[in-house]
Amino acid sequence: MHDPSRAPASPDIAGGRQPPLRVVIDRVRPEVDGGRFAAKRVVGEDLVVEADILCDGHEELDCRLFARPAGAAGWIEVPMSDVGNDSWRAAVPLDRIGPWEFDVVARIDDYATWLRDLARRIAGQESIVAERGVGRELVVAAARSGSTAQGRLGGYLALFDSPDWPTTAADPRLVELVREAARGADEVTRLVAPRPVWVDRRRAAVGSWYEVFPRSWSGAAGRHGTLADLADRLPYVQRMGFDVLYLTPIHPIGRAHRKGRNNAVSAAEGDVGSPWAIGAAEGGHTAIHPALGDFADFSRLRHRAAALGLELALDLAIQCAPDHPWVTEHPEWFRHRPDGTIRYAENPPKKYQDIVPFDFGCTDWRALWQALLEVVRFWIGEGVRIFRVDNPHTKPFAFWEWLIAEVHRDHPDVLFLSEAFTRPKTMFRLAKLGFTWSYTYFTWRTAKEETGAYLEEVSTPPLSDFFRPAFWPNTPDILHATLQEGGRPMFEVRLALAALSVGTWGIYGPAMELLEARPRGPGSEEYLDSEKYEIRHRDLDTADSLAPFITRLNAIRRDEPALARNRPPLVQTIDDDFLLAWARHDPDSGNRVLVVVNLDPNTPRSGLLHLDPAALGLPPGSPITVHDLLREGTDQWLAGAPVRIVCTPDRPVLVQRLVAHAPTEVPA
Amino acid sequence: MHDPSRAPASPDIAGGRQPPLRVVIDRVRPEVDGGRFAAKRVVGEDLVVEADILCDGHEELDCRLFARPAGAAGWIEVPMSDVGNDSWRAAVPLDRIGPWEFDVVARIDDYATWLRDLARRIAGQESIVAERGVGRELVVAAARSGSTAQGRLGGYLALFDSPDWPTTAADPRLVELVREAARGADEVTRLVAPRPVWVDRRRAAVGSWYEVFPRSWSGAAGRHGTLADLADRLPYVQRMGFDVLYLTPIHPIGRAHRKGRNNAVSAAEGDVGSPWAIGAAEGGHTAIHPALGDFADFSRLRHRAAALGLELALDLAIQCAPDHPWVTEHPEWFRHRPDGTIRYAENPPKKYQDIVPFDFGCTDWRALWQALLEVVRFWIGEGVRIFRVDNPHTKPFAFWEWLIAEVHRDHPDVLFLSEAFTRPKTMFRLAKLGFTWSYTYFTWRTAKEETGAYLEEVSTPPLSDFFRPAFWPNTPDILHATLQEGGRPMFEVRLALAALSVGTWGIYGPAMELLEARPRGPGSEEYLDSEKYEIRHRDLDTADSLAPFITRLNAIRRDEPALARNRPPLVQTIDDDFLLAWARHDPDSGNRVLVVVNLDPNTPRSGLLHLDPAALGLPPGSPITVHDLLREGTDQWLAGAPVRIVCTPDRPVLVQRLVAHAPTEVPA
Repeated sequence: MHDPSRAPASPDIAGGRQPPLRVVIDRVRPEVDGGRFAAKRVVGEDLVVEADILCDGHEELDCRLFARPAGAAGWIEVPMSDVGNDSWRAAVPLDRIGPWEFDVVARIDDYATWLRDLARRIAGQESIVAERGVGRELVVAAARSGSTAQGRLGGYLALFDSPDWPTTAADPRLVELVREAARGADEVTRLVAPRPVWVDRRRAAVGSWYEVFPRSWSGAAGRHGTLADLADRLPYVQRMGFDVLYLTPIHPIGRAHRKGRNNAVSAAEGDVGSPWAIGAAEGGHTAIHPALGDFADFSRLRHRAAALGLELALDLAIQCAPDHPWVTEHPEWFRHRPDGTIRYAENPPKKYQDIVPFDFGCTDWRALWQALLEVVRFWIGEGVRIFRVDNPHTKPFAFWEWLIAEVHRDHPDVLFLSEAFTRPKTMFRLAKLGFTWSYTYFTWRTAKEETGAYLEEVSTPPLSDFFRPAFWPNTPDILHATLQEGGRPMFEVRLALAALSVGTWGIYGPAMELLEARPRGPGSEEYLDSEKYEIRHRDLDTADSLAPFITRLNAIRRDEPALARNRPPLVQTIDDDFLLAWARHDPDSGNRVLVVVNLDPNTPRSGLLHLDPAALGLPPGSPITVHDLLREGTDQWLAGAPVRIVCTPDRPVLVQRLVAHAPTEVPA
Repeated sequence: MHDPSRAPASPDIAGGRQPPLRVVIDRVRPEVDGGRFAAKRVVGEDLVVEADILCDGHEELDCRLFARPAGAAGWIEVPMSDVGNDSWRAAVPLDRIGPWEFDVVARIDDYATWLRDLARRIAGQESIVAERGVGRELVVAAARSGSTAQGRLGGYLALFDSPDWPTTAADPRLVELVREAARGADEVTRLVAPRPVWVDRRRAAVGSWYEVFPRSWSGAAGRHGTLADLADRLPYVQRMGFDVLYLTPIHPIGRAHRKGRNNAVSAAEGDVGSPWAIGAAEGGHTAIHPALGDFADFSRLRHRAAALGLELALDLAIQCAPDHPWVTEHPEWFRHRPDGTIRYAENPPKKYQDIVPFDFGCTDWRALWQALLEVVRFWIGEGVRIFRVDNPHTKPFAFWEWLIAEVHRDHPDVLFLSEAFTRPKTMFRLAKLGFTWSYTYFTWRTAKEETGAYLEEVSTPPLSDFFRPAFWPNTPDILHATLQEGGRPMFEVRLALAALSVGTWGIYGPAMELLEARPRGPGSEEYLDSEKYEIRHRDLDTADSLAPFITRLNAIRRDEPALARNRPPLVQTIDDDFLLAWARHDPDSGNRVLVVVNLDPNTPRSGLLHLDPAALGLPPGSPITVHDLLREGTDQWLAGAPVRIVCTPDRPVLVQRLVAHAPTEVPA
């Protein structure tokens, strides 16, 4: 027995004059948790909707997609096409950012069904005498429907008296008129509720990030860098082709329990402390560290960056140094032990003696949540539209869902990057509830199988419907063992992996391009002399800098449509345990890019590459001109024929544009 | 912006005194379409429930499963265990057939979290001075909760004054008391609604079917068989080890537009017609064809079958011959064309000139649906508990959902087999809305890859949560080309494939065991001289009958726990394009059965078999004694070592029990 409360659509033949509808809609795509969360898309894309639409018997169906920006007066209505195996599809261009919704509507098209069967009967030389009346009856019913089409339908009725009625009955104008009339009259099957879609601006799909500690950018040893210094060095970042400049926190840094160099529990005289220990006498989350400058400096930095095509991203770290003004102004926002002390923050095994967490469930929680929202609004007021959120997994899910929704109500262009490395399912949940992107487990995917599988997993549905990966080869917190040990070839491999496989990538600079690789100790993923606790000065113009390589990667990302349009990576077969190959294909432009990296880059390796011509839309046997995008030179391949690929320590990464020719065409 | 109507759980900080709950429950299993449909299980099994349960931070969780037969007064409550990666699991024995429901409930266990961190602080030699007050406060709060545990809690408070409070605070009785008290006081996260589960009797999981045309079982050429004749021949069926005897329709057969032999549009004098053309002057769906006998004969047949361990299944074909009494008694139940005629039934490309369909959407639909339900109830009254439903896809989904629910309300032991070959998604939808089993596409899966993939697809979630396959090597409608051409070896292969891979299988007999293989014409899947249109007489005791082979297959199904308990087939690697291998493993008994079939059975083939020891729970390197279950003899293998398998035309099927020994144990 089905309990009606469990199965709301279970038919109850006691109610209703009409029998339950015959058409059912199943497996709607995109759909996140049955519509509980919005699917994510970016403006300028088509929203492609698919659904399985079923009916008993063999009826012709009339299926339509309705879509609109949420709250818009009218719907965009598009007919859906049968794409086989009872799936139907339609697409709507998304021309506006913000919340959208869509619905799927389906009905049986009795007239089209009758026409189809009539044609079959005629072809089978069956008698169709009795069918004339059936067709006329369907047109009569449509003419009675009360729709705008009914007037024009009357004129067609006489056609059934003519001997060539089987031909005139199939007149496409008549078919469309009957359909239009019946749409108004028939009960239709639709989704239980429209499904939500969140449409972001383009930056959500594709972007290159560069993370800096502004205080390290003075250019003069011994001097605390300022926002003005950083503004002067922007061309260095811009020349590498980055889109987003992410600033670690720029707020006053606490003095109480300040950390010393290399995370020492006590600071020495002159130690600058961790920028994530936010708040001191000078102010809290809405203040700028006096040593960095003032709001005018911030504004100038932002404008100069924008002029160079660089957008600022700010760190949002919702926590306080013990001397943050709020700790005394709002003691109720922190959890005190019976002895009056507050526990410092922990993210096991890490201890943050210089930080106290908020108590999101305190009695005054509503005021606290509102104050934190006002912090975000404050920086939005200062022109910031991207926030990199520190440790979101230590704040309640409901807080983020509420905060992001509140921000998006007024500012749908604001984007949030979730630092959620800790647990995959927490990471996914944060993505569902509104974060634009997430850091991923990319940094710890180093073997061939797991890396290839991960590239595909994060780039395809169901995950890609709500989750957008951001791949970081390094961060101030993660100097992976591969980089500690692998040297320049490994740096190139990790850079190419991150830059060329997904839409959003970033590096923590200049540590990355300067090949910094010394850990604080054996087994540690922390940098020695980490910028988290001290100011670092570097010569950016070293001969072996990876800046030119990074510049090339970002140029490829921009120039090749398969990457610029964020087509998913398709892992290709290559007969070697350490060579990983993937291709990206943009069907619109015909652009195809192949990347091969050697995950054991200090050892020369070679393997036979078996490209999958079908997945790349290559006619088997067609000639392919191969353009090396990292070096000069071209080569000629044949689609479907294996190719030997060789990677050496001075060439651990291959990036190649594949230009296909018709099989008879002679490549230039 | 999240539209609240779309995201019902989105927090609204204006409402509610408390902040939204911190724990969220995600990805509940089993769950069919978010709880819209019931997951299927059988009595005697455990209902294993898993869910991802998440909370911000690093809190210890207290997660519980609640389950009960729907409508029962109390819930069965079971603690859930953390099985890694934020998944939690619990199991409840299903001791009753019918509808069940379950809920998942989760809360933060503050006291357990505090204890865990206290132990960590002690191990790290941190100061715990401030923690004594925190622990005491948690116990005080629990003691105030108003639960039954509160009285006993007071006694523990004094313990915090003793110097060894860190030890006594961890007293498991105290931990449990605090948990019990807090459960009553805390708000908890639970599912939006309990999830439904339908629990069938055991036959739903495992059964062997034998399909017959009773009129062919007289044993004397020229005489119409009766139910009494069939009753006399039951030992023949029983000896082969079948569980279910499925009778094609036993109702009066229409005379109007009766089909002749080999589906001729006109019947000749003496032609008996198709049993699916139901209804004539003698009666309709609740009558028995006079030539077969009467209700007393039916009852005797049923009782004699039951005594032999055979349960009857009846065909439920919801359609009428043109002279079915209802066509004149209830003309409103049929769709008439304007000229007064009714279109005959079609299931393209098949035409059923001898059958008219019901109009399920007629104005009198409620009476029609009720009358059809009464037909099912009538046969339930005659002791029938299994119905094989003819062409369910040509009747509305809502009709089936309603009918099955109505039947199950009073008779949860009734089982329905869906004949739904037509379209995969229609087949799945019918399964979701209540059919016990479905015919599948098994008959048309003949190549190695597709067959192996299909065995696994239909036996694992998400499909197996609501869909149960029934594999039929032949039916009266399907004599597949492989059988037409493959001879005895192919018959053995198709029998073994069906019988040894899934829980429910069946054959149309005696055509199958007597190796009938002649099609009506080239390219046809119809039998020549099909029993659908004529009476067939056969000598059942031929020397080459496959009855002994079938007997052996059914014995293996019964004797080997891996098959008797319907463990899923695990496809194994074997280096040959036509040898298909799968294993089934029952961890409870340690029983493991390996099957290898040659899909090209008239050609000798050999290949190296690579058993997956991990999937079969075999310690690598352990000796395995291999017992041949079709022939005498044993062999010795080593887990993890490849084994050469040879299949010849006289031995196209291998069935072997694998008995593992500890690596040091010498096999007998």
